[in-house]
Amino acid sequence: MKTIDFTIVSGGVAAASGFVANGCKSGIKASGNLDLALLYSETACTAAGAFTTNRVRAACVSANEALLPSNSIHAIICNAGNANACTGARGDRDVVTTRESVGKALNVPADSVLAASTGVIGEFLPIEKIETAVPALAKSLSREGADTFAKSIMTTDTVQKEYAIEVTLSGGTIRLGGCCKGAGMIHPNMATMLCYVTTDAAIDSHDLNRLHKRTVDMTYNNLTIDGDTSTNDMVLILANGTSGVTVSSEEDLGVFKAALFEVYNVLCAKIAEDGEGATKRVEVNVYNGKDFADCKKAAKAVANSNLVKCAMFGNDPNWGRILCACGYSGAEFAPDAIEVILAGVPVYQNGGPAKFDAPELSKKLDSPVVKVDIDLGHKTEIHAVAHTCDFSYDYVKINAEYHT
Amino acid sequence: MKTIDFTIVSGGVAAASGFVANGCKSGIKASGNLDLALLYSETACTAAGAFTTNRVRAACVSANEALLPSNSIHAIICNAGNANACTGARGDRDVVTTRESVGKALNVPADSVLAASTGVIGEFLPIEKIETAVPALAKSLSREGADTFAKSIMTTDTVQKEYAIEVTLSGGTIRLGGCCKGAGMIHPNMATMLCYVTTDAAIDSHDLNRLHKRTVDMTYNNLTIDGDTSTNDMVLILANGTSGVTVSSEEDLGVFKAALFEVYNVLCAKIAEDGEGATKRVEVNVYNGKDFADCKKAAKAVANSNLVKCAMFGNDPNWGRILCACGYSGAEFAPDAIEVILAGVPVYQNGGPAKFDAPELSKKLDSPVVKVDIDLGHKTEIHAVAHTCDFSYDYVKINAEYHT
Repeated sequence: MKTIDFTIVSGGVAAASGFVANGCKSGIKASGNLDLALLYSETACTAAGAFTTNRVRAACVSANEALLPSNSIHAIICNAGNANACTGARGDRDVVTTRESVGKALNVPADSVLAASTGVIGEFLPIEKIETAVPALAKSLSREGADTFAKSIMTTDTVQKEYAIEVTLSGGTIRLGGCCKGAGMIHPNMATMLCYVTTDAAIDSHDLNRLHKRTVDMTYNNLTIDGDTSTNDMVLILANGTSGVTVSSEEDLGVFKAALFEVYNVLCAKIAEDGEGATKRVEVNVYNGKDFADCKKAAKAVANSNLVKCAMFGNDPNWGRILCACGYSGAEFAPDAIEVILAGVPVYQNGGPAKFDAPELSKKLDSPVVKVDIDLGHKTEIHAVAHTCDFSYDYVKINAEYHT
Repeated sequence: MKTIDFTIVSGGVAAASGFVANGCKSGIKASGNLDLALLYSETACTAAGAFTTNRVRAACVSANEALLPSNSIHAIICNAGNANACTGARGDRDVVTTRESVGKALNVPADSVLAASTGVIGEFLPIEKIETAVPALAKSLSREGADTFAKSIMTTDTVQKEYAIEVTLSGGTIRLGGCCKGAGMIHPNMATMLCYVTTDAAIDSHDLNRLHKRTVDMTYNNLTIDGDTSTNDMVLILANGTSGVTVSSEEDLGVFKAALFEVYNVLCAKIAEDGEGATKRVEVNVYNGKDFADCKKAAKAVANSNLVKCAMFGNDPNWGRILCACGYSGAEFAPDAIEVILAGVPVYQNGGPAKFDAPELSKKLDSPVVKVDIDLGHKTEIHAVAHTCDFSYDYVKINAEYHT
């Protein structure tokens, strides 16, 4: 991965020029909180998406997938509080109605509008509430509205999650910014992960799609809170080209890809940090696997192990659980060539336990971020990272203490 | 699967004739509890095994796998309190020493002895304690000792787990009995699952191996407490033929297979019932998948979902989580053809939510055993069952509240 210089900027999903956004309270959430978000670019965008692999998928997922990649996207509308999943033909119709209503309010074609939903499964969208709210929401869009946009897609997320950077390409400076939600539930159902990223770079939709899919595979697809793949997950990117900077040379595509990785990776870390019941974020880096797929398998298995995550909650330097998860991950390694480093301290190397001060290491684990480094011993210099959080009583509380 | 008549009998691992067993306190466990178990048949047994697929495996696993299937097994020695995993060459030597010591005490070849370990990973076996304890243990063997055997393989299991049946074949009556441990941790490390089954039927080792592997695939491989595959898991079966009844005709092999399923399935249910932190057992039956592999994928995905298991703990009829897990399981089904029945109540059918009384269903879920029935809609009459338990605060407590 290319190392790039970049500057962190504010503005989230509207940090890039030409994008405006906002959110409102449409009444979908019984709580009366913000629940409808709209993002818009007057200039048509090239756009790409990545979607849940769940066979049971929300109506909006199939609808967006049919439109992407594209050269003519103008807007994203997202509601929180209702997933519009398992809602059959009526769910499909409600997506069309939502898009038509946004298209009309913004004076753009309905099929230039992407739709997303997050919330409870198996209930019909209160479509009239969306139709009523959209015209005023469309009129209220601004760059500052990105903040409210980020709040309006939240369900049980405890903090809004935004990140934006500025990078310089051969033709000038571009911005890349996004916001996401995830790892929360509204009426305990699905931990939907939604992420929207925008850029003012001009990039061909084929290139954008390729780099997007590859970066999602390196970031979002390695993010796990509880191993349950939602029916509504999606990561969308829009590029409107208003910076006047075109990304097409090999060199610029490389910088753009590294910038994408930076934004997606940080947004993933933010989701992990705010994982249900999380008291800390856990970052699992796997080096020197046979190939990227193997590094990823091992990183995901460790990040997804309930036992590893409980040990992290308990500040327990229980390296046996980490090694065990590598063992069943399917990644190839020789048990005497693997090395495990926990919070910077080697705990397993040369085919056996390393000597370490356990109480001292336990203190290091009592930290907001814990890193687990694993070397699979193949000397390939290939690396994958997985983000997760620890597993606490509150995860069980959040997901069990709902009685119908 | 053939339906068979059988009688439940007592005697566990020594219910079948010709088997004797016992256990003792060798000092491996710091608590001073029972920690060494021995099973013996004077008549050499045909034997088969099934082992963990974890790449990181205990020394005893590789050693047993090299010996099986076999026609000449006499004994199984098992210690609790130390997994002898990740212990390199010394671990391998300790398995050889253990076997030699048992072989000497019983006057049988060392390679007619199978070895097993469960407990903490990454520590060396206190081999001298085993060598000291074995001679007296070997002298104390009896049929009644099966009870102490079952107790001596326990770690944090809260109950001993035994089951035995008597079935009639064309040539007479045989017994099939076993005991197992699992879903507990001693120094919180791995939830090792160990199971030993004996029979006095005479059966060719090739047939025994084939039926054993197939039945393990239908039972133990569908058992999940937390999705973490241990380094030490094994299921062993010994057949000594002392009933004088030979299993070789197609008809008898069918009955024997059904009897194996009965014993393995009940032992699996016992492990699920005693899963860490479990307040109830959850049985997931999947019907009418494209094939057995698909039924199994869906059953395991549901049984392994933290979200489903938290809902079970909270008595929450949250069918969206069940459908979602089926969706990411990889099993093929049409979302409008799948049917989900929770505790006997249809909750999803004909492509949409079924009408049900949620508070009433929540009351039904407050039960020691909850059944989840899923019909994938392919009309193949193929079925798979997965056993699990709910997910409670105590799971986190058991696996986190250990501070070095």
